[in-house]
Amino acid sequence: MCELLGMSANVPTDICFSFSGLVKRGGETGVHSDGWGIAFYEGKGYRSFHDPIASSDSEVAKFIQNYSIKSTQVICHIRKANRGRVCLENTHPFSRELWGQMWSFAHNGQLKGIKNKELYGYLPVGTTDSEYAFCWILGQLKKEFPTKPTSRVKIRKHIERLSREIASLGVFNMLMSDADNLYTYCNTKLSWLTRQAPFVEAQLLDADVRVDFKKETSDTDVVTVIATEPLTSNEQWTKMKEGEFSVFRLGTKEFTSFTAS
Amino acid sequence: MCELLGMSANVPTDICFSFSGLVKRGGETGVHSDGWGIAFYEGKGYRSFHDPIASSDSEVAKFIQNYSIKSTQVICHIRKANRGRVCLENTHPFSRELWGQMWSFAHNGQLKGIKNKELYGYLPVGTTDSEYAFCWILGQLKKEFPTKPTSRVKIRKHIERLSREIASLGVFNMLMSDADNLYTYCNTKLSWLTRQAPFVEAQLLDADVRVDFKKETSDTDVVTVIATEPLTSNEQWTKMKEGEFSVFRLGTKEFTSFTAS
Repeated sequence: MCELLGMSANVPTDICFSFSGLVKRGGETGVHSDGWGIAFYEGKGYRSFHDPIASSDSEVAKFIQNYSIKSTQVICHIRKANRGRVCLENTHPFSRELWGQMWSFAHNGQLKGIKNKELYGYLPVGTTDSEYAFCWILGQLKKEFPTKPTSRVKIRKHIERLSREIASLGVFNMLMSDADNLYTYCNTKLSWLTRQAPFVEAQLLDADVRVDFKKETSDTDVVTVIATEPLTSNEQWTKMKEGEFSVFRLGTKEFTSFTAS
Repeated sequence: MCELLGMSANVPTDICFSFSGLVKRGGETGVHSDGWGIAFYEGKGYRSFHDPIASSDSEVAKFIQNYSIKSTQVICHIRKANRGRVCLENTHPFSRELWGQMWSFAHNGQLKGIKNKELYGYLPVGTTDSEYAFCWILGQLKKEFPTKPTSRVKIRKHIERLSREIASLGVFNMLMSDADNLYTYCNTKLSWLTRQAPFVEAQLLDADVRVDFKKETSDTDVVTVIATEPLTSNEQWTKMKEGEFSVFRLGTKEFTSFTAS
């Protein structure tokens, strides 16, 4: 199993605190030592950092922990390889452009027979099931909507349908973003919490690090963090249910469903 | 004018030395202070680092100067904005997947009327002429060759044709890579040099930094560096001619032409 971390915020926010907890699990407090990556959205802009080695040993990860990149959406992944060898091209998050937006995707789980599905328009660079699934999803979206539909609901419904179809092939815990929305699908393991006023102090589970969010935030900030396993010991994380598809936007959970809508 | 830097090598090689010279021109010895980016290929794998601020002030640039990423192809760009505001999505190099390979692109110059050209399959995320030109090139390649042709010559010829067509719109100095080949087009300003045995010591023009390549390389290494302006004071750089289209592969200039072939 790999581990996922996502963030959705209504103001550009740094993820240094949560990221510091997660990277420990990449080879130190956890076994996910086969590479890691993190993607940041800054407006429509997108940048990502990848390293095909254990995050706990990675100089790039150390740099990211100490360098505050303020972002409204983040997707991060630490990898325990099952399908696909350990190399840069198999390191999540993956990214592709659709409708003039940069989409990114990270996944944990295995998907039996995913490579029998026909791709349309997007091809994987590496050999993971995950990147293949991402290419399939984007291809299906492009096929259904060659130009971007004005209705966000249409897009969301289609992504939900595609997610449920893929989830039927195995284990599919997924974070996907298009810069504006963070789409999540929970098959076996994902938890989330929203931080907003009144802010409190939080203590990481994987490192002796505390942060007092009162000092770091303003009263109107709303920040949701989503992770495979809770990252802090003294906050109330909500475990997602099997089959839960959700959409986060500007820090808030905007939509959830448990069966195809 | 922006500045470009590219590298093609027959063994994974770091670009710290050349990059150290270039970043000085991003706000210190040069005026290109509107962001910078660098893309590395490691096998089929691709990773890039971008920062929408002056490279001479950038913490990410400092990190890259001191962190040796060994790569067979590199494309780097420091920006002096003319079209498109200063922001992450307007920061080169741009990247897109075509035929299961990650392509990257950096450009300097302005292209009058480029946005009148019809795009196919790829859309820009930002607002620069450069990203638009890149999307147009990849779209035309995909339209001509929906699947990757086995003939590298066919691909090269088509890229050359597309480059010449774009160059007719203004100034087009360009570096583009598909992981295996580094395509260059010189409209006004590009120089290159190949380092191979016997290696010598080199002195940067923009910083008091020397490196003795004898100590850093083995006898069979072949590394070509391409830059808008020569980066070293004691090596023989070759200035490309107007209208020169070249392809570098494994450190060697494999093809050059001055008129459409």
